[in-house]
Amino acid sequence: MEVKNILSEVPKSLENECFESLIQTREVKIERIISLGHASPEGYWYDQQQNEWVLVIKGRARLRFEGSDTMISLEAGDYINIPSHRRHRVEWTDPAEETIWLAVHY
Amino acid sequence: MEVKNILSEVPKSLENECFESLIQTREVKIERIISLGHASPEGYWYDQQQNEWVLVIKGRARLRFEGSDTMISLEAGDYINIPSHRRHRVEWTDPAEETIWLAVHY
Repeated sequence: MEVKNILSEVPKSLENECFESLIQTREVKIERIISLGHASPEGYWYDQQQNEWVLVIKGRARLRFEGSDTMISLEAGDYINIPSHRRHRVEWTDPAEETIWLAVHY
Repeated sequence: MEVKNILSEVPKSLENECFESLIQTREVKIERIISLGHASPEGYWYDQQQNEWVLVIKGRARLRFEGSDTMISLEAGDYINIPSHRRHRVEWTDPAEETIWLAVHY
């Protein structure tokens, strides 16, 4: 059994957001996401079939849910549970340092 | 949807290890574990029906797997996947500060 570190092996180029599946079964996916100033495209909403529990390991981000103008600010250690089909978008991630997310889709 | 922080609301008394279920469905449990110098009882092995993906958020710990004398050292950001029924124990956690684990049982 191998030990890895969630802060390590960060790609040098982050032109696109980086999605890396750490565990994948029929029922659950554990994923590392690395953002660097990325946001969801204008007008785009995530609408996911599974629930998503997401934890910010490092960095800073802002989410927004459809039907609300409130920005949800997240920083290291913050987590939130996003029910399936709860439409949401990433409005902002810190452009100055990587934001590393742990997402559990279940 | 509520934002919580995985480093917050740490119990003042940690006479026993603290296990807190954050998400629980039929297929998956996401759990926060807080240790403070705790170790598995002498001779005790965890033998779990589910796989466990575990990440150290903060602190330091050492695991051991049955059939091996090698200590697996874990510190902040380290993660390991423990297959179901792979017998293991926590040999040591840092007595000087809380070790906060995120465990996904799946």
